[in-house]
Amino acid sequence: MEFDLIVRNGIIVTASEVLPAGLEIGVSNGKISCMGTSLPASPGTTIIDAEGAYITPGGVDSHVHLAQKNSPTGDTWETGSRSAIAGGTTTILAFASQPKSETSLWPTLEDYKLKSTDQSYCDYGFHFILTNPTPEILRNELPVLAEKEGITSVKLYMTYEAMRVNDREILEILFACKSLGMTTMIHAESNDIISMIIEGLERNKNTDPFFHAIARPRIAEDEASYRAISLAELADAPMLIVHMSSDIAVAHVRDAQTRLLPIHAETCPHYLFLLSEKIKGEPHDHFSGAKHVCSPPLRHDVKDLEGLWQNIANGTFTTFSSDHAPSKYDHPGGKRLGIVDGVAKFSKIPNGLPGVETRLALLFGQTPACQEPEHARLSLPRFVQLTSTNPAKLYGLDGVKGSIAPGYDADLVIWHPGKSGAVTISQDQMHHDIDYTPFEGINVGNWPRYTILRGQVVWDQSTGIVGGKQYGQYLRRGKGQVLAGRTGNIPRGMVEDERKYWV
Amino acid sequence: MEFDLIVRNGIIVTASEVLPAGLEIGVSNGKISCMGTSLPASPGTTIIDAEGAYITPGGVDSHVHLAQKNSPTGDTWETGSRSAIAGGTTTILAFASQPKSETSLWPTLEDYKLKSTDQSYCDYGFHFILTNPTPEILRNELPVLAEKEGITSVKLYMTYEAMRVNDREILEILFACKSLGMTTMIHAESNDIISMIIEGLERNKNTDPFFHAIARPRIAEDEASYRAISLAELADAPMLIVHMSSDIAVAHVRDAQTRLLPIHAETCPHYLFLLSEKIKGEPHDHFSGAKHVCSPPLRHDVKDLEGLWQNIANGTFTTFSSDHAPSKYDHPGGKRLGIVDGVAKFSKIPNGLPGVETRLALLFGQTPACQEPEHARLSLPRFVQLTSTNPAKLYGLDGVKGSIAPGYDADLVIWHPGKSGAVTISQDQMHHDIDYTPFEGINVGNWPRYTILRGQVVWDQSTGIVGGKQYGQYLRRGKGQVLAGRTGNIPRGMVEDERKYWV
Amino acid sequence: MEFDLIVRNGIIVTASEVLPAGLEIGVSNGKISCMGTSLPASPGTTIIDAEGAYITPGGVDSHVHLAQKNSPTGDTWETGSRSAIAGGTTTILAFASQPKSETSLWPTLEDYKLKSTDQSYCDYGFHFILTNPTPEILRNELPVLAEKEGITSVKLYMTYEAMRVNDREILEILFACKSLGMTTMIHAESNDIISMIIEGLERNKNTDPFFHAIARPRIAEDEASYRAISLAELADAPMLIVHMSSDIAVAHVRDAQTRLLPIHAETCPHYLFLLSEKIKGEPHDHFSGAKHVCSPPLRHDVKDLEGLWQNIANGTFTTFSSDHAPSKYDHPGGKRLGIVDGVAKFSKIPNGLPGVETRLALLFGQTPACQEPEHARLSLPRFVQLTSTNPAKLYGLDGVKGSIAPGYDADLVIWHPGKSGAVTISQDQMHHDIDYTPFEGINVGNWPRYTILRGQVVWDQSTGIVGGKQYGQYLRRGKGQVLAGRTGNIPRGMVEDERKYWV
Amino acid sequence: MEFDLIVRNGIIVTASEVLPAGLEIGVSNGKISCMGTSLPASPGTTIIDAEGAYITPGGVDSHVHLAQKNSPTGDTWETGSRSAIAGGTTTILAFASQPKSETSLWPTLEDYKLKSTDQSYCDYGFHFILTNPTPEILRNELPVLAEKEGITSVKLYMTYEAMRVNDREILEILFACKSLGMTTMIHAESNDIISMIIEGLERNKNTDPFFHAIARPRIAEDEASYRAISLAELADAPMLIVHMSSDIAVAHVRDAQTRLLPIHAETCPHYLFLLSEKIKGEPHDHFSGAKHVCSPPLRHDVKDLEGLWQNIANGTFTTFSSDHAPSKYDHPGGKRLGIVDGVAKFSKIPNGLPGVETRLALLFGQTPACQEPEHARLSLPRFVQLTSTNPAKLYGLDGVKGSIAPGYDADLVIWHPGKSGAVTISQDQMHHDIDYTPFEGINVGNWPRYTILRGQVVWDQSTGIVGGKQYGQYLRRGKGQVLAGRTGNIPRGMVEDERKYWV
Repeated sequence: MEFDLIVRNGIIVTASEVLPAGLEIGVSNGKISCMGTSLPASPGTTIIDAEGAYITPGGVDSHVHLAQKNSPTGDTWETGSRSAIAGGTTTILAFASQPKSETSLWPTLEDYKLKSTDQSYCDYGFHFILTNPTPEILRNELPVLAEKEGITSVKLYMTYEAMRVNDREILEILFACKSLGMTTMIHAESNDIISMIIEGLERNKNTDPFFHAIARPRIAEDEASYRAISLAELADAPMLIVHMSSDIAVAHVRDAQTRLLPIHAETCPHYLFLLSEKIKGEPHDHFSGAKHVCSPPLRHDVKDLEGLWQNIANGTFTTFSSDHAPSKYDHPGGKRLGIVDGVAKFSKIPNGLPGVETRLALLFGQTPACQEPEHARLSLPRFVQLTSTNPAKLYGLDGVKGSIAPGYDADLVIWHPGKSGAVTISQDQMHHDIDYTPFEGINVGNWPRYTILRGQVVWDQSTGIVGGKQYGQYLRRGKGQVLAGRTGNIPRGMVEDERKYWV
Repeated sequence: MEFDLIVRNGIIVTASEVLPAGLEIGVSNGKISCMGTSLPASPGTTIIDAEGAYITPGGVDSHVHLAQKNSPTGDTWETGSRSAIAGGTTTILAFASQPKSETSLWPTLEDYKLKSTDQSYCDYGFHFILTNPTPEILRNELPVLAEKEGITSVKLYMTYEAMRVNDREILEILFACKSLGMTTMIHAESNDIISMIIEGLERNKNTDPFFHAIARPRIAEDEASYRAISLAELADAPMLIVHMSSDIAVAHVRDAQTRLLPIHAETCPHYLFLLSEKIKGEPHDHFSGAKHVCSPPLRHDVKDLEGLWQNIANGTFTTFSSDHAPSKYDHPGGKRLGIVDGVAKFSKIPNGLPGVETRLALLFGQTPACQEPEHARLSLPRFVQLTSTNPAKLYGLDGVKGSIAPGYDADLVIWHPGKSGAVTISQDQMHHDIDYTPFEGINVGNWPRYTILRGQVVWDQSTGIVGGKQYGQYLRRGKGQVLAGRTGNIPRGMVEDERKYWV
Repeated sequence: MEFDLIVRNGIIVTASEVLPAGLEIGVSNGKISCMGTSLPASPGTTIIDAEGAYITPGGVDSHVHLAQKNSPTGDTWETGSRSAIAGGTTTILAFASQPKSETSLWPTLEDYKLKSTDQSYCDYGFHFILTNPTPEILRNELPVLAEKEGITSVKLYMTYEAMRVNDREILEILFACKSLGMTTMIHAESNDIISMIIEGLERNKNTDPFFHAIARPRIAEDEASYRAISLAELADAPMLIVHMSSDIAVAHVRDAQTRLLPIHAETCPHYLFLLSEKIKGEPHDHFSGAKHVCSPPLRHDVKDLEGLWQNIANGTFTTFSSDHAPSKYDHPGGKRLGIVDGVAKFSKIPNGLPGVETRLALLFGQTPACQEPEHARLSLPRFVQLTSTNPAKLYGLDGVKGSIAPGYDADLVIWHPGKSGAVTISQDQMHHDIDYTPFEGINVGNWPRYTILRGQVVWDQSTGIVGGKQYGQYLRRGKGQVLAGRTGNIPRGMVEDERKYWV
Repeated sequence: MEFDLIVRNGIIVTASEVLPAGLEIGVSNGKISCMGTSLPASPGTTIIDAEGAYITPGGVDSHVHLAQKNSPTGDTWETGSRSAIAGGTTTILAFASQPKSETSLWPTLEDYKLKSTDQSYCDYGFHFILTNPTPEILRNELPVLAEKEGITSVKLYMTYEAMRVNDREILEILFACKSLGMTTMIHAESNDIISMIIEGLERNKNTDPFFHAIARPRIAEDEASYRAISLAELADAPMLIVHMSSDIAVAHVRDAQTRLLPIHAETCPHYLFLLSEKIKGEPHDHFSGAKHVCSPPLRHDVKDLEGLWQNIANGTFTTFSSDHAPSKYDHPGGKRLGIVDGVAKFSKIPNGLPGVETRLALLFGQTPACQEPEHARLSLPRFVQLTSTNPAKLYGLDGVKGSIAPGYDADLVIWHPGKSGAVTISQDQMHHDIDYTPFEGINVGNWPRYTILRGQVVWDQSTGIVGGKQYGQYLRRGKGQVLAGRTGNIPRGMVEDERKYWV
C-alpha cells in the first residue's frame, strides 16, 4: 500500500452518492488504488488537501470537435485539450469525419491519429462521423474500427448536404452498429424543412445572423427526433440524440425511455443558458450575433430553457456535453465567412460555439454546492452522471473513466471549498484558441481548483496549466452500455419479432 | 310546390340528427325542394314509400381508383361507378394521376376526362395525384385546376418509388394548396423503412404474399404520419391522411386535432373488418392471399381493429372511404403479376382491394339500426358524417352533396325497414368488374333498397341497376372546409409567426 | 300546407350545416312543419323576413338557477325566463334542490312546480339536485321522477358542506341513474382542499373577495374531475362535469372521451371571457370584486382562457351554459352578505353570476358571422351544437328542441344580417332582476333580433319582450343521449365485466 | 489500517457501478474503512473470500409489519428480523401504528420500543402510522418524533375504516411533515369504491377469497393515486405511494416525476411475480387462496406484471419492498378468521403476505447475474438502488446504510459466484414464523451466501442463522432525501406561490 498521491479531506461525489466527509483517495500508477481513512503516506507520496471541497470525477466530454477540415479556425488537439483540462475535463471524445467522397474510413482515421498523437493534454478517443456508409464500410470496416481501434461509436447527420445520410442509410448503420455493440449518435433536424426555409429567407433577403434561428425552427428538431427514434425502435439499436434543444423532442425521448427503448439524449450548456436574442448581436453590429450561431440554434423563450432544465433534473438527459465546435469570430476563415460581398449571409456562417472549458463549471453552479437547496436545479450525483459517469459508460469507458472508485483512473476535479470558488466567465480566462466565449459574463459559483488526470495534477488554478500535451492518451474503448431502456424490444404493432424474416 | 318525387314514411338521418319519423322529402329538378309533412303530390309525382326505414344521404366515396394506368385490370369508370350506386354511393372522387415523367398536368387531365365522360353511373370528381410538382405546376397550373376545373384536392405519396414526393416537395405543395383553399391528401408510410425490409425479405427468399404484411410494419405508418403532421403544422395547411391502419398514427392525428391543427384522418372498411391472416391465403394456395394485398397492409391483431373502431366512435376519423383500388385476381395482368417464373413475389402483386360497393353496408351494419344499442359501434349521425357529410364538406361539395336538406341534391339511400335487409356479402352480388370481394361471407344487417341520385332511382334492390352510365355528372368542386382544427396556427416553438420571413 | 308563420330569407344553421341561403321555414301549431322554398302563405300567415341573417335554433340553457332558497336575491322564474328570451334562449333547465334535511324529493318538487307554473316566459324543465340520496329515493323516487315527471337528470356537488355528497354516494347515484337512463351532472371541486385553504386564509385574515380565487385553486378542480371520471368509469354511467374552468381537468375529459367513456363537459361564458383580476374589484372598492365571485372561480391567466377556447373548438366541450346563479350586488341579502361586521369575508359572499341573457351573443360573437375567418374561434354549426342541440339531446329533448328541422318546436333565433347587430353589453340592456352584469362593456358582434318560441315571437329587439309569463311550458323530458363515448365499457384493468358480481 | 474483516475477491455493486473485479473491502468497528487492493490483514482479521461473486449492499426493506396488534399471528420482531437476515436484508423499517382511539403517539411508541428492543437480528427503525392526526400531534409530537426519536416518516391509509385518514387530514399531515423533512408514505386505494363493492359482493353472497380481487379493482388504486399526487402537489411535499400494483397509477407517478413533483413509488415482489389466479386457491379448497390475500390484490393479467416490470426498469419505482405483513394460514387467529360460521368471507381474511426473506433473491434473479443479458429485466446497479440505496436515502439513512463505500456500515450480501446459487423457494427454507410462503416453487438464480451486518456475518447459508437477536440496533434516522423531482414547485395553475396566503 504505497501511494503516489493521496487526496485528503474532500467530499467525494459519485453518480449515486455524496460520500461521507473525510475519505481519502489513494492513487498508485495513475489509478485509484484505495479509498479509506488515514491512508499511509510514503516519502514519495504527494498529498493534496482538498480542504473540505467537493471532489468529482474528471469530466468526460463526449462531444468535441477538434481539427476538423470543415472548421479551419477551430481548436487543434493541442488548444482544445488544453482548454478541456483548464475546465476540469480529463477525457474528450472527438470526431473523425469521413468525407462523403471517401469510400474507406482508413485514410480519415490515419489523418486524425496524426493530428492528435502527442498533441493532447487530456485522454481522448474518437467517434466516427459516417457520411457515406458503403456496404464495404458497414460490413468490413466497422468491425475493425470497433474491435481493433476501439472506436465504438458513430455519428450521423440528418441535415447538412455535405454530411447527411438518409433514413435508409441510418437504418443500415443502426443494424450494423447494433451487432457490434456500437452506439449511434445522431444530429436530428429535418433537412427538407430547413433547406426550404433557408431558400425562402434568402429569396426575401433576410440574411442577418438572427435568421439562422428562424431557419431552423423547433419543429424541424421535433420531427427528426421522432423519426430517428422510430428508426432506432425498428432496429432495436441504441441511439443518442445529440445536442437537443427542444423539450418536445426530449419528450419523445422520455416516452421512448418509458417504453424501454434504448434511446439516449444529450444537451449542451448553450441550450440551458442562452437564448436566441444573443444571435441578434449588438445594436450597432448585428453581425456579432454570428458568435452565437450553432445548430440547432439557440431558442427564443425562457420556457424553452425551463423545459430542458426539467429534463436535466428528471433523468431524461443521459449526457451533458459541450459540442465544442468553434470558429474564430474575427477571422476571414472563421465566422466572418458569413459576410459575402459585404453583406451578412447567415447560411455561410460556420456553425458552432466554444465550450469545452466552461461546461463543468456552468452545470456545477446549479447544484446545491453553489445554490440554496430550493434553487438548485440538479443534485451533485446527477451532475456527476451527466458530465462524467454516463458518457463513460455509454461510450465504453466504464471501469476506467467516469467514477471515483478503486480501480478507476485517478481522474479528479477538486473544487474550491464552500462558495469560495465563484468566478465570472470571461474570454481572458479561457485556454482555447478562440477569440470569444459565448458565456461571457455569466457568474458561476465555482471553478476547478485542481484537475487531476491519471494521478497527475494537470490544472492548478493558482498556476494554470500544469500538464503537457504529450500526456494525454488515446483511449481504445469497449462496447457501450445501454443506459436507458434495453435491447430485446419488439417494435410496436408486431406480434412476434418479424425482423427475423428480413435482417 | 310541385314535386317530381316525394319520399314518404322514412326516418331521415343527417350528420347531427335522426329526425322525427314521418317527414317527407319533396324533390324538384333533382334537388330537395322541401321537407315537411303531407307534401302535395301532383299527377306527375313519383311516390316512394320508405316503409319506416332509415334514409341517409347518398354516399360520398372520396377515395376511389378507376381506370388508372398502373392498374390495367381494375374497374373502369363504367364498372366502378355501377358498383358504387349498387352500394348506395352516389358520388365518387377518383384520381387523375400525373406520371412522374410529365411536367404538365393537362395531358393527364384530358386523359381522365376522356375516360370518364359519359361513362359514370354516379356523380364524380377528380383528385389530382402529384408526383412531380414542378414550380410551373405549383405556380401556374394548380390555380387553374382549382378555380377553372373545380379540382380542389391533391394526393401525395410518401412511398412507392414511381409516385413518391420528398418532404421538401410536400412542403412546397402544402403551401401552394393552402393559398388556393385546396386540401392535400397523403399516403403516409416511410419509404425508406419499407424498401429496406423488402430487400431483406427478398434476400432471404421470403416472398409469399403474407410477407407483404411484414414488409410494411405499423411503425412505417406511425413515423410517416407524425412527419406528415409536422409538415402540415409548419405550413398550417389542411391535410388528410388517407387509409390509416395504425391506432398510434391515429393518436398522432388526435393529438394534432386537440391542438387545433387542420389534420384529418381517413380509414377504410378493410382496416376495420379484416386481419393479416387473410393474406396467408388458403392452406393449399398461399398465393390466394394476394387478394388481400393492399397498402398499408391488413394488421395482425384484433386489438388493431379495436383501436381503429375507437377512433370511428370518438370523432377522430373524418372520413370513411373505400380506397377501391382493385385488380382482378385470376388474371395475368392482375394479382397474378405477383407470380414471377412460377414463384410468388409479394412485391410484384398489384396493391389494392375492391370495396366501393360494400362500404356503406359494412358500416351501417354497426349502427343501432342493425345492432343492439350496447353493441353498436357508432351512431347513425356519425355514420352519415363519415360516409357522406364530411367528405362532401372537406372536398368542397357542401351545400350540394352530403346532407338531406332543402337545397341539396336529392341523393338518397333508402334502407330496408327494421332488420329486414340483412345480407351476406358475396361476389355474386357485386357489380364491379373484379372477380372477388375481400369481404366475402360477412353478414351485414342491411343493404340499400333504393339509391337515388338527383331525384332518380338508380339502384332498386329488387330489380338491380336502374340508372345509366351517362347520368353521372362531373362535379366542379369549391374550396374545402377545415373540419378539424383550424388554420391560423403558429407552429409550436415560435413566439411570433416566423413564416412571414420566408414564405 | 297552411302555415301560421313563415320565416323567409334567412340562412339556417344546424348542428352540422349552414344550409343554402333562401330556405323558408313554415310553422304550424308551434312546430316547424315544412322547410323549403316558395312556401305558400295563407291569409292568416305571419311572415318574417330575416333579410339574409343567420337563423339558429332557440337557445337551450341547461344550467340555470332560479328561485332557489339559498339565493334569495336571485332571479325568480319570471325575471330569469324573461332575461332568457331577451337573449335568444327559449328553453331553460333549472334546478330543484333537495335540502339535506329532507328524505323525500316530493316536497321540493311541489315547491318548485309552484314557483314556476305560469311564471315562465320560456319553456323549462328541472334537474334535481340530490344532497341526501337515501336508499328510498334511489330505489323508489328516482324512477317516478324520470318516468312520470320527466325529470331525467340529477346534479351532485362534490363541494359545499350543505350540499355535497361523498364518493360512495356518487357511485350509488350513478348506478341508479344509469339504469333509468338519467344523466348525472357534477360540480367537481375537492372539498377538502378548499376547506383547508379557506380556514388558512381566514386564520391569516386574508378575506377580501379576491381570496376567493386563491381559495379554490385549479388543482382542486383537476383532482375532483379525475375522481368523478373514475367513478363514472366504474359505473359506466353518463356524466357531465359542469362549469369546467381548468384545461387540465378538461384534458382528463378528453382522454376519457378518447377511450369512449360517456363523459361530457360543460363550460360557461365567464370562464372564456373573464379573468380573476375582475375579483380584485375597483382600486377604491375591493369589495366590488364580489360581483365576480363564482365557483370555480375565474382563473388568473390568459392562457387559462386559451386552454378552454381550444376545447370549445376541438369538440371536447359538450355544452356551453350560463350557470346563471346571480345574487344582487347592492343588497344586504345578496353579495353584501360578504361584509361581516364591516369586514369583507369572501367565504360569505353568495356564489354566482347572472348570464342567461348574454350567453348566446357572447359565443355567437366568436363565430365567422362576426369575425374574420382566421379569428373565429368556432364554426356556426359548433355554436349551435354547444348552445342548443347538444344540451337538448343530452337532457332528453331531442326531436323537440335543439334543431331547425321539420317536426321540431319552432324555436328560433333570428340574428341581424351581416354585422349590423353589434352591441356593447350593458346592465341597462338586461332584463334580469339583478343590478349588474359581469360582462359589462364587452362588445359582441350581434344580438338576437327576434326570439321565436313555438312559432310565437317572444322577443323583438325593436320593441322588447313580446311574450308573456304564462306562455312557457314545462318540459317532460325523455332519456338523455350519450353524446361522447358510449356505455357498455368495462373499466380498465378488468379482464371481464366484474360488475356482475356486485351490482 | 487494521481491519477486523477483509472481504476479498468479489465484484462490488453500487447504485451506479459494477466495480472492477478484485477490489477488497476492509472493515473496522463495523464500518467499511477502506476499499482497495491488497489490504493488509492483521492476526485478528477475519478473511472472507467471495470467490468472484457479486457483493451488494445489505438489503434495506422499508416496508415491514412486525408485531402489530391487528395481526396477532404475524411475525414478531424476533422471527421477522431473523427471516430478514436469512434473505440478505440487514435493515428493516417497521411500523408503529397509532390506534385511532389514541390522541398521543407516545404510548404507541413505548409499546413498539418494548416489542423490539433486544429482539432484532437486524438493524431497524420505525415509520409511524398516523390514524388520528390531532393538531397536538401535528404541532407538538411530530417534531419530537423526527428530531429526538429519529422517526422521520409517517404512513397514511386512504382505505380501511380503522385506519384511514381523509383528504383534509392528508393535507394537514403533508404540510406538517414537509416542514420537518419527513416523508409521507401512503396506501392509495379509494375507500368508497371498495366499500361499495364489498357490500355488493356480500349482498350477492360472493364471498370466496377470490372476490377479494374483485373488491379492489385497479381503478380504485388509480383514482386514489392521482388524488394523493394532487394533494402532494398542492403541499409540494415528498410522498411515496406504497405497494403499487397498477401501471396506470404508476404512470401518474411518472408523469409527476416528469414535472419534478417529489413523488416516489414502491412496488413489491408479489405484484411482479404473482397473479390473481393464486387467490382462487386449490380446486378442492378455494379457501387456500386466502394465503394470497393482500391489498391491493394481485392483479389478473400477465400484462399487469409487464407494466410494473417496465417501471422497475425505466426508473419510475423508487423502492422495492416486501410489504411483509403476514398472518398464519392454518390458525384460527390468522387467515382462518376468513371463515365465519363455516363460510368463507373474504372481507374477514387478514390482509398480507410474508416476503421479507424472499425479496432480494426474487429480484436479483432478474438481473444479468442470473439471466442472459437480453432477458434480464434490470441491471445490477438498479437492483441495488431499489433494494437498498434508495430506501436508505429516502428514509434518512444515507451515509450509513445503502451503499458499499468507505464510511458506511459494513452491511453486505455476498452472493454465490456465477450461477451456482440457484434455489427453488420453499417454505422449508424460510425462517419466519409463518406456515407458508406465497412464492413457493419459484426458481431464483441465486441466494445470499453470507449476510454481513456491521462487519459481522449474521447469515451463512452453509450453517444458517449466525447472528443473535440482540445484535440489531435501533436506527435514529435523519431527514429523508427527495429522490424524484424536487421541492420548490408551484402547483399548476398558480401564477405565483399562493400558498403564502394560507399556510
